[in-house]
Amino acid sequence: MKKIIKNGVIVTASDTYEAEILIEDGVIKAIGHDLQANDAEVVDAKGCYVFPGGIDPHTHLDMPFGGTVTKDDFETGTIGAAFGGTTTVIDFCLTNKGVPLANAINAWHAKSKDKAVIDYGFHLMIAEITEDVLNQLPSVINEEGITSFKVFMAYKNVFQADDATLYRTLLAAKELGALVMVHAENGDVIDYLTTKALEEGNTSPIYHALTRPPEVEGEATGRASRLTGLADSQLYVVHVSCADAADRIAEARKKGWNVWGETCPQYLVLDQSYLEKPDFEGAKYVWSPPLREKWNQEKLWTALKNGELQTIGSDQCSFDFKGQKDLGKDDFTKIPNGGPIIEDRMTILFSEGVKKGRISLNQFVDLTSTRAAKLFGLFPQKGTIAVGTDADIVIYDPNAERTLSAETHHLAVDYSAFEGMEVTGEPVSVLSRGEYVIKDKQFVGNPGSGKFLKRSKFGEH
Amino acid sequence: MKKIIKNGVIVTASDTYEAEILIEDGVIKAIGHDLQANDAEVVDAKGCYVFPGGIDPHTHLDMPFGGTVTKDDFETGTIGAAFGGTTTVIDFCLTNKGVPLANAINAWHAKSKDKAVIDYGFHLMIAEITEDVLNQLPSVINEEGITSFKVFMAYKNVFQADDATLYRTLLAAKELGALVMVHAENGDVIDYLTTKALEEGNTSPIYHALTRPPEVEGEATGRASRLTGLADSQLYVVHVSCADAADRIAEARKKGWNVWGETCPQYLVLDQSYLEKPDFEGAKYVWSPPLREKWNQEKLWTALKNGELQTIGSDQCSFDFKGQKDLGKDDFTKIPNGGPIIEDRMTILFSEGVKKGRISLNQFVDLTSTRAAKLFGLFPQKGTIAVGTDADIVIYDPNAERTLSAETHHLAVDYSAFEGMEVTGEPVSVLSRGEYVIKDKQFVGNPGSGKFLKRSKFGEH
Amino acid sequence: MKKIIKNGVIVTASDTYEAEILIEDGVIKAIGHDLQANDAEVVDAKGCYVFPGGIDPHTHLDMPFGGTVTKDDFETGTIGAAFGGTTTVIDFCLTNKGVPLANAINAWHAKSKDKAVIDYGFHLMIAEITEDVLNQLPSVINEEGITSFKVFMAYKNVFQADDATLYRTLLAAKELGALVMVHAENGDVIDYLTTKALEEGNTSPIYHALTRPPEVEGEATGRASRLTGLADSQLYVVHVSCADAADRIAEARKKGWNVWGETCPQYLVLDQSYLEKPDFEGAKYVWSPPLREKWNQEKLWTALKNGELQTIGSDQCSFDFKGQKDLGKDDFTKIPNGGPIIEDRMTILFSEGVKKGRISLNQFVDLTSTRAAKLFGLFPQKGTIAVGTDADIVIYDPNAERTLSAETHHLAVDYSAFEGMEVTGEPVSVLSRGEYVIKDKQFVGNPGSGKFLKRSKFGEH
Amino acid sequence: MKKIIKNGVIVTASDTYEAEILIEDGVIKAIGHDLQANDAEVVDAKGCYVFPGGIDPHTHLDMPFGGTVTKDDFETGTIGAAFGGTTTVIDFCLTNKGVPLANAINAWHAKSKDKAVIDYGFHLMIAEITEDVLNQLPSVINEEGITSFKVFMAYKNVFQADDATLYRTLLAAKELGALVMVHAENGDVIDYLTTKALEEGNTSPIYHALTRPPEVEGEATGRASRLTGLADSQLYVVHVSCADAADRIAEARKKGWNVWGETCPQYLVLDQSYLEKPDFEGAKYVWSPPLREKWNQEKLWTALKNGELQTIGSDQCSFDFKGQKDLGKDDFTKIPNGGPIIEDRMTILFSEGVKKGRISLNQFVDLTSTRAAKLFGLFPQKGTIAVGTDADIVIYDPNAERTLSAETHHLAVDYSAFEGMEVTGEPVSVLSRGEYVIKDKQFVGNPGSGKFLKRSKFGEH
Ligand SMILES: [Zn+2]
Ligand SMILES: [Zn+2]
Ligand SMILES: [Zn+2]
Ligand SMILES: [Zn+2]
Ligand SMILES: [Zn+2]
Ligand SMILES: [Zn+2]
Ligand SMILES: [Zn+2]
Ligand SMILES: [Zn+2]
Repeated sequence: MKKIIKNGVIVTASDTYEAEILIEDGVIKAIGHDLQANDAEVVDAKGCYVFPGGIDPHTHLDMPFGGTVTKDDFETGTIGAAFGGTTTVIDFCLTNKGVPLANAINAWHAKSKDKAVIDYGFHLMIAEITEDVLNQLPSVINEEGITSFKVFMAYKNVFQADDATLYRTLLAAKELGALVMVHAENGDVIDYLTTKALEEGNTSPIYHALTRPPEVEGEATGRASRLTGLADSQLYVVHVSCADAADRIAEARKKGWNVWGETCPQYLVLDQSYLEKPDFEGAKYVWSPPLREKWNQEKLWTALKNGELQTIGSDQCSFDFKGQKDLGKDDFTKIPNGGPIIEDRMTILFSEGVKKGRISLNQFVDLTSTRAAKLFGLFPQKGTIAVGTDADIVIYDPNAERTLSAETHHLAVDYSAFEGMEVTGEPVSVLSRGEYVIKDKQFVGNPGSGKFLKRSKFGEH
Repeated sequence: MKKIIKNGVIVTASDTYEAEILIEDGVIKAIGHDLQANDAEVVDAKGCYVFPGGIDPHTHLDMPFGGTVTKDDFETGTIGAAFGGTTTVIDFCLTNKGVPLANAINAWHAKSKDKAVIDYGFHLMIAEITEDVLNQLPSVINEEGITSFKVFMAYKNVFQADDATLYRTLLAAKELGALVMVHAENGDVIDYLTTKALEEGNTSPIYHALTRPPEVEGEATGRASRLTGLADSQLYVVHVSCADAADRIAEARKKGWNVWGETCPQYLVLDQSYLEKPDFEGAKYVWSPPLREKWNQEKLWTALKNGELQTIGSDQCSFDFKGQKDLGKDDFTKIPNGGPIIEDRMTILFSEGVKKGRISLNQFVDLTSTRAAKLFGLFPQKGTIAVGTDADIVIYDPNAERTLSAETHHLAVDYSAFEGMEVTGEPVSVLSRGEYVIKDKQFVGNPGSGKFLKRSKFGEH
Repeated sequence: MKKIIKNGVIVTASDTYEAEILIEDGVIKAIGHDLQANDAEVVDAKGCYVFPGGIDPHTHLDMPFGGTVTKDDFETGTIGAAFGGTTTVIDFCLTNKGVPLANAINAWHAKSKDKAVIDYGFHLMIAEITEDVLNQLPSVINEEGITSFKVFMAYKNVFQADDATLYRTLLAAKELGALVMVHAENGDVIDYLTTKALEEGNTSPIYHALTRPPEVEGEATGRASRLTGLADSQLYVVHVSCADAADRIAEARKKGWNVWGETCPQYLVLDQSYLEKPDFEGAKYVWSPPLREKWNQEKLWTALKNGELQTIGSDQCSFDFKGQKDLGKDDFTKIPNGGPIIEDRMTILFSEGVKKGRISLNQFVDLTSTRAAKLFGLFPQKGTIAVGTDADIVIYDPNAERTLSAETHHLAVDYSAFEGMEVTGEPVSVLSRGEYVIKDKQFVGNPGSGKFLKRSKFGEH
Repeated sequence: MKKIIKNGVIVTASDTYEAEILIEDGVIKAIGHDLQANDAEVVDAKGCYVFPGGIDPHTHLDMPFGGTVTKDDFETGTIGAAFGGTTTVIDFCLTNKGVPLANAINAWHAKSKDKAVIDYGFHLMIAEITEDVLNQLPSVINEEGITSFKVFMAYKNVFQADDATLYRTLLAAKELGALVMVHAENGDVIDYLTTKALEEGNTSPIYHALTRPPEVEGEATGRASRLTGLADSQLYVVHVSCADAADRIAEARKKGWNVWGETCPQYLVLDQSYLEKPDFEGAKYVWSPPLREKWNQEKLWTALKNGELQTIGSDQCSFDFKGQKDLGKDDFTKIPNGGPIIEDRMTILFSEGVKKGRISLNQFVDLTSTRAAKLFGLFPQKGTIAVGTDADIVIYDPNAERTLSAETHHLAVDYSAFEGMEVTGEPVSVLSRGEYVIKDKQFVGNPGSGKFLKRSKFGEH
């Protein structure tokens, strides 16, 4: 029932200190020295950091895409997440025009209910704004607890919304208390460039990057930011991949606009040259937006350091190299977009960020957990270590050394985006609401134990 | 011996939650619900926030200036500070060329020792860099615990250092582990403009502002930032008064340089027109840098919101209107620079910042306490509420309404910079290392109870 | 047959000097001192500047709009232009989707042929890019001599093109040698805001401005600029009204992109408050983009001075206050957009720009004539005073003082946008290809004498 | 007596056209077709451009530096200049503190009088501003015709002026009608870095670059620009070498400040790696500011294209590799700074700029001649081809191909900075006030035929 974590160094977005944590009924009961808890199971965190469980605000589990479905679902995906120290995911619930929003939400509940090993929430995609959609939004927010909406500026003729939809979503979100998320790439231009590339016989993976140049992301990011400033609303730009887009966010913030930016581990350590790997291996590295020229990486790290970007999402969206990615063997536009990142998200940040002096320990926690909790209405239930919060906790060995690989990861997908990369730092044990999911690096959780999180409105905490 | 704070809402730079705090031996022993502490004195914080005590990183107590001495010393000054919720001040220790640094440090210890009612530390002014000075610095840092150096770019022929001194101080600070602070105004230009103004018979207070235009601050801020970037060192720009200077800091941070900026309450709510008050009253508002045109205020608030500026200092430096400020009756250059801000520093931030929605509660704590603790080597002993930290705590009533006035403040000086201003929020009780300094809005502390703080090197925490 | 202009000071975009100009066969034959030309008619320019005739790159003469037609056609419009010193206009030829481009071009030839008193060319609007349209463009450029295309980013469901159309137009223009022009406002957002304003009963002229805020212009300008950079093409942004849009152009140019900006006299001297004039008089000042807050004016002047904006168009588009503007009496969206500027375009620039020291004499010529000639393929036939160029010449009295008014202007429209404004500088005589159009401030020209100009491809000179 | 140039294409900063030029008494008498001039000597410019003679606003001829004297004096230097198409130079007259300015001016007249083969003027260095100096300035401007002052922000303890001197020079220049020029590098920092480099035994040429990093130039350029804006004066930044400094100028201009920037051919085509050439050859490439990393070149070209930089100077300052540069064999600080550029200045701009499409023909003329004439009070006597101007004319073969080399140049110095560089474009003949200096690529001028130019006040034309 009770647990007490001893000998560790607790790290939050603000603080770093040694103390014991007493957990009761899945919640943190007390933090202190010499806590009285004879009946509690002792968790020894000696030599370890004690982090709040990570929050991955950007996952696609069990998601259909281009005639296939992501390899990892809510079971394998959340198991991988837990191994990496993540105890909450927020997944994107895809909708279709003209269909009740509830259908999509119900479908996502069905996908996740008996499978998730950690807690989870949903973002809702907005495909169009009609009177009908507007009428459904209050119950989505107030009853379903889904308080963030996603708008796509790309994927023409599929997901792409026009500026009127984006602007009206921003206004609705402001009125109702939600956060708008955008996939910011100019879909019109991409559509033209991809069509032309194929016409010219350019079908290999690298053309995925070449037909989605940084300018189309910078443009769309700037556009969405300006519409947000005009609407006096709030915007979260997902998967910022390049300096151009990061700069647009920084400009918006400088004006005092409520714009935040998320980047992903892949943009921090991989680059466009990966798409040119031989034997179609480049397909493993097909994301939208694509990996960029290497010099962007340092700009993104600096943006994390100085607060121009605020969160790290995984954009987890995994497809097997054999059997799925190869749908695009002869046509890069048919390569399913995305990759397996959910498990290594925090590891990359810790190893490449904290260990290399690019960000502080407290920033690590803020970037991988706290800020997402605040932005997405999960705070203070999730996102920190404080009395009263859910005991979602990671016991983290900062000195463990290992090599990332598909052979050792815990996802279902058949490759690793970081194959062979040497990293430092690893979760030893992970608790979800006080119960072990990972114990001494072994999975001990239960599919279905993860609960759906009804989230607070934007700005309530 | 023990105290337990109940029923309040604890606020840190990151978290906001309800819990009890158990204090023992001046230190936070535990935070939790239902803490066992029958023998502890109960502090009821019902309806209140429980903040870490404020840290004022910029005060001038008992400081000689232009033939007079600040009205408030370490006794009245720290009493005022405590009434406002501040439990630590860092005062500037002024040095002279060619004199051992120890002399100045000893003089400052003598000024403060039996007077301070809260804890305090010193910054050390660097007037010149010679081999002799360089040889003294290691012991200043390692033995005296003074880990921040101040360089003046203005006050020609008095405090002003040249760029070589600034640059070498930056290099020394990097090597030894100290933070460089600058008063950033171009003293050469100011010297010319003030001389000319007086020659032309322009002697009234407003000419203080007109002879120190924003460009001279923006220029010097940009210069110091660039030298910092070049030296790969660390810089803290004191009393940023205008958008021009704030923008220079933002640019430096965007490049990834280690530059931070402090602004002061007076720049956030007062403006240049105050210097034109009749009957020489403008003299009350003579600061360097001067108050600016009103439009700068919104820019500074936005810079606080988006993290371009990081701390709030008071630049406390009080002189009586009658008997001191009037030294400059016929010559604005003879008006002692500065004003009484130490007591109202946090109040202004809370009332104008938090209450008006410009910054969050957590940002309030970060700006007035936590960030200064981190930058100036006091963390985690000071600057947060966490197990193991000093019990420097403010019980804060967020709804108390009152009017700021010299009639009700607790400083020795004869006027208030914010006379008549209506504010919301007030400390009810203030603890320093677990002991009441203010209890139910009454001073109950003891001069001399404040301790000198030997601070850690820059970047150690 | 021959004319010789004596005693004037010739001004070009680069030079200012005293010399005689010998004209023969409508062309400048020689410039010099003591030219031998006994048989030439002497034009005495004593006390005057001798400017190249102005080129107005942005007019709408005889244009249908919202169920009515501009009051001024190619006859009254070009007469007004000539009185103001303009000797060439380039008018916008409006097209419709699905109709051969030739139809529109023929219609515009029919409107202008027997009416224009000065030379003229056409820009062609691009409503959509289809294979069919792409096939027509080479002959438009090579045979019709129409080498600039206009794309609208606003006027949803009327003129508005999507980003695919804009991008493909940029690519086609690059390939074929044309310059793309954009009306840069985000039409989606405007559409929403205007609909909402009307729903809320806000029908008066000021809502025209409030529903087209500067952000929608800044956004669209930035978007078009970025697409241009990406396409490595060339872009001309018409009627830049505000600092936000001007800054986007400056940013693009800083990157080396081929982006130019035009502003108009109305944005330099009128402001948003004019739309609030009582008795529906605000309708006289309804432009798209709208007049802006006054502080933008200085930013635009500075942009002209330092080269961030390059040309001055009139956006001439006149509707009577009585009988046309009042179509929008009860609904601001029905007020025909535009005003009468063609006649006063150069006067405003001279009086407010040159005379007030904001721009130089040479810049005046460049802004009002030379740069447009270069950008739009008229150079060196038009746009300068040099041997071999058309003798389109203005004899300009720089000291004439007068008051602008509908009572004295030469347009058909019933009001002046600059009613009551006192200006300095006035054309005394104006020559088109060596023949007087205005002589001693009297119209002496002939409708139909103006010739259609087939223009060179972009970048050929 | 008379000459007539036929068959060439005249190019000015604005125009490009075919016409004849009639020269009489050293001045352009007429430009036209079929000019009557039977008695005139015909200069056939078939296949050539006819440019206004170049103006090199930045030379150091016969200048003492560090115990030696530049190899090229007013004779060999101006002969080289003429071969390259330059017909006017403005040389820097160095002064010393406490010595009458007239002494320096007389010394420079003595150096140049019987030697120069083209016309020339002087800039005056300001070492300090005292009442005495201020009293001498009016006659320097009005009687000596020296209307530009140079202030050094570097060369500590030698030429370096403090900010008070710079600011007061700006104010004096504004009042009297002069243009202030700055050598913008932070001398304090350079002094420290060079001393330290030598102490550490780093004596080779590359340390010249490493001890003058771009930040010191960017900082000083920003500082000087801001003081100019504050003073509402006018500033010309010489030898801009890097993007950092160019950006500071662009920022100043964006604010509407009167700041101009000059770059030099060496910064456009050479880079820092040249200083690492073996066998001390790096010494040939020692300039202050130093050559920069290669990526700066494209930024400088773009700044020229979009008008952020306005002129091209040579900073001609030549020292023999053998016997002069080797003074610094064991100590890079003893390498005389500078190189031979005067002859190839225009060639580099034409070949690398015009021929490679980076700038237009008209920009070439503006950058190498016209703008300098306007800024330095020589216009319209010099700097353009127009009736009434001095017949300083270059007949330029745009297709001549050759290889730059010390073996073929016409300077006295023993090496070429551009040895082996293949270029296109070469002057065939060069006229100074109507007389050949270069005829069919042979020198036919006379030392002493060049006249001293008393220049107009700043802003008079
Ligand atoms: Zn996406
Ligand atoms: Zn995604
Ligand atoms: Zn200060
Ligand atoms: Zn201070
Ligand atoms: Zn338009
Ligand atoms: Zn128009
Ligand atoms: Zn220099
Ligand atoms: Zn020089």
